[in-house]
Amino acid sequence: MKHKTPTTPKLQDLRVNGPRLWDSLMELAQIGATPKGGVCRLTLTDLDKQGRDLVSRWAVEAGMTVTIDKIGNGFLRRAGRNNALPPVMTGSHIDTQPTGGKFDGNYGVLAGIEVVRTLNDAGITTEAPIEVAWWTNEEGSRFVPVMMGSGVFAKAFTLEHAYAATDAEGKTVKGELERIGYIGEQEPGDHPIGSYFETHIEQGPVLEDHDITIGVVTGVLGIRWYDCVVTGMEAHAGPTPMALRRDALQVAAELMQQVVACAHRHPPHGRGTVGMVNVHPNSRNVIPGRVKFSIDLRNASDELCEAMDADIRAVAALLSAESGMPIEITPVSAYTAQAFNADCVQAVARAAAALGYSNMPVVSGAGHDAVYMARLAPAGMIFIPCKDGISHNEIEDAKPDHITAGCNVLLHAMLERAGLADPD
Amino acid sequence: MKHKTPTTPKLQDLRVNGPRLWDSLMELAQIGATPKGGVCRLTLTDLDKQGRDLVSRWAVEAGMTVTIDKIGNGFLRRAGRNNALPPVMTGSHIDTQPTGGKFDGNYGVLAGIEVVRTLNDAGITTEAPIEVAWWTNEEGSRFVPVMMGSGVFAKAFTLEHAYAATDAEGKTVKGELERIGYIGEQEPGDHPIGSYFETHIEQGPVLEDHDITIGVVTGVLGIRWYDCVVTGMEAHAGPTPMALRRDALQVAAELMQQVVACAHRHPPHGRGTVGMVNVHPNSRNVIPGRVKFSIDLRNASDELCEAMDADIRAVAALLSAESGMPIEITPVSAYTAQAFNADCVQAVARAAAALGYSNMPVVSGAGHDAVYMARLAPAGMIFIPCKDGISHNEIEDAKPDHITAGCNVLLHAMLERAGLADPD
Repeated sequence: MKHKTPTTPKLQDLRVNGPRLWDSLMELAQIGATPKGGVCRLTLTDLDKQGRDLVSRWAVEAGMTVTIDKIGNGFLRRAGRNNALPPVMTGSHIDTQPTGGKFDGNYGVLAGIEVVRTLNDAGITTEAPIEVAWWTNEEGSRFVPVMMGSGVFAKAFTLEHAYAATDAEGKTVKGELERIGYIGEQEPGDHPIGSYFETHIEQGPVLEDHDITIGVVTGVLGIRWYDCVVTGMEAHAGPTPMALRRDALQVAAELMQQVVACAHRHPPHGRGTVGMVNVHPNSRNVIPGRVKFSIDLRNASDELCEAMDADIRAVAALLSAESGMPIEITPVSAYTAQAFNADCVQAVARAAAALGYSNMPVVSGAGHDAVYMARLAPAGMIFIPCKDGISHNEIEDAKPDHITAGCNVLLHAMLERAGLADPD
Repeated sequence: MKHKTPTTPKLQDLRVNGPRLWDSLMELAQIGATPKGGVCRLTLTDLDKQGRDLVSRWAVEAGMTVTIDKIGNGFLRRAGRNNALPPVMTGSHIDTQPTGGKFDGNYGVLAGIEVVRTLNDAGITTEAPIEVAWWTNEEGSRFVPVMMGSGVFAKAFTLEHAYAATDAEGKTVKGELERIGYIGEQEPGDHPIGSYFETHIEQGPVLEDHDITIGVVTGVLGIRWYDCVVTGMEAHAGPTPMALRRDALQVAAELMQQVVACAHRHPPHGRGTVGMVNVHPNSRNVIPGRVKFSIDLRNASDELCEAMDADIRAVAALLSAESGMPIEITPVSAYTAQAFNADCVQAVARAAAALGYSNMPVVSGAGHDAVYMARLAPAGMIFIPCKDGISHNEIEDAKPDHITAGCNVLLHAMLERAGLADPD
């Protein structure tokens, strides 16, 4: 690959048009806008079609071509000088949660569009082509599995599996893709990628807490989900003395606290959460006979996830032996940890530093389409702060300055990877 | 009161007819029998009417008169020599839980009938009259409040309040009493009681655990019910590091364990139960933002209940200060503790000892009609073991020998209180 490195003073001064990006975010957020200021634009609905249509129109207006694959992923391409090179890609998703916000996913796609608009304004041709992708059904709130489009693309599961998924009304993914006219010809995955970046709000509180503008994402935590059932003996709260009880909730409460203690025993990235609890019979004056609760363990490597698994199982075995109550821990699902490519991580860090933005390495605790892309190509992510760390919520919010900063980092990281065309 | 004390050898040998009592229990249990061997005979239903009719018929066949009061309580009277004396009464209830058993309540009423049948067989006339009462709607599963008939009788609440109670279909107590023909003329409470005994399955595991036949009930625990709400901050389980969480469930789990610890700090009768838990939003990968749970505290005196109240509030205040999360504890309802009359308790203990039954003092953790009667007259209760301490369940079970033993104790305790008529 012969090309200039982006070191000319002119290029270093290149910045995206922040207000234009903000206006696009706000315009897209009108489609499915909720009274509380959020967005409800579930995947493969009429509103999703409107969103796809708008983003496609913007892409065409920016001189890009649009390709749709069989799972409805969209690839918006800006040609480079050498179109035999695999594209430097960025992307995310434009579907939302039922009570979602304006930024989750949408920011990643529209930041890509803004990069292209900025290159157009500056008359810059990159050596490798630039592509912006939207991935179908990242949220998974209407159809499971989550990260469906990128998962099919990365062959994490089959197209047929995804097509057969049904919503609460029994409608299938394939049927809905056909209905909204976004079932394409291209075989998913039959599309080279040179490298991949994804810009996203953090969805957590770390950057805001540290007052940092750019999170240089080094990887995505592995996740282990379990169901845990503690079985005691249902009995009347009144006539049963303390010494003769087999109170499943008391043992469960101890284990719930141990889930958090287990995370603390595996720093710095260990996370442990009990989010869901069901008590049987859940009656005020009955000692619980059975308690079922969820366990969510996360850490930065599969080895650490495995260690946390062994830790919580050992604690549960001890509690079961002490109490005489059976404790079952059943795996529900698992996602492997994903470290991002060192060169891509460094490209993000260099761009942030060159632009003068405060930055720090962070891990992503949540899954993103970039996790699947990282299986196929060098990949990295750029996080910006979101208000109070809140997302998947209509009050999700981010500052215009941060939105602009993240997009500037994306611009320069992509330029570093794509290279400038020789002026010929 | 001039009468012989029941010390003749003949009287000491008097025993109830156990098989006859058992047969009556089994016959009554056919009305509303469930496939699993339990009984569903909700108060003031057609089945309840059939139950009342059968018990009334047995009473009349045993030479008793039947009086019904305005809340549908039934008083089955066997005349004594001196009918100006207030009756020595026993009783309980014949309504059941939706998935109730054969013994809860029914045993207390039919044991009374069996006492009368035994006296008839032996040709014994007591000095004071004997009465057997059934109390309307003890269970409270169709209409609240629980212990309705005895509560109106003891003026714990008004007849009008009880009449106005509605079931899930909007039917009223008054309407249903009229419909089944069990709304009487007598003003509730306008009915003297000399002393009161109630025979009941324990509904707990203490007697079985100690292999004891007769529980000499010294009193009924006071009850304090509360709702507790811990408010944290809902956040994504993935992107939120442990140090930045405000996990309401973790604080709630600690407090749930403290409810049990509080009971242990107030021995020997302190009881603490969390039976009901609701987690918000109860999603696997969301850190709980709010947890609501019930607290049930019980102890043998109102002073001890008050001390437990202060204890748990102090612990909650400490946990709230440590965690920075608000904890609200709201009283839901309270029942005062009730010690039984020492003479009645002694009459039960003496009868059990004279009959050669193993016995021990116990407290009742659950409410019974006897609690309200104890406000009006000297009262006591007799407990017998039930299998695994289980009641309010179709598998509720008791041994025929224990059923017989409890009734023999009732017979002799009532005879001690009623006295024998002088042979004249």
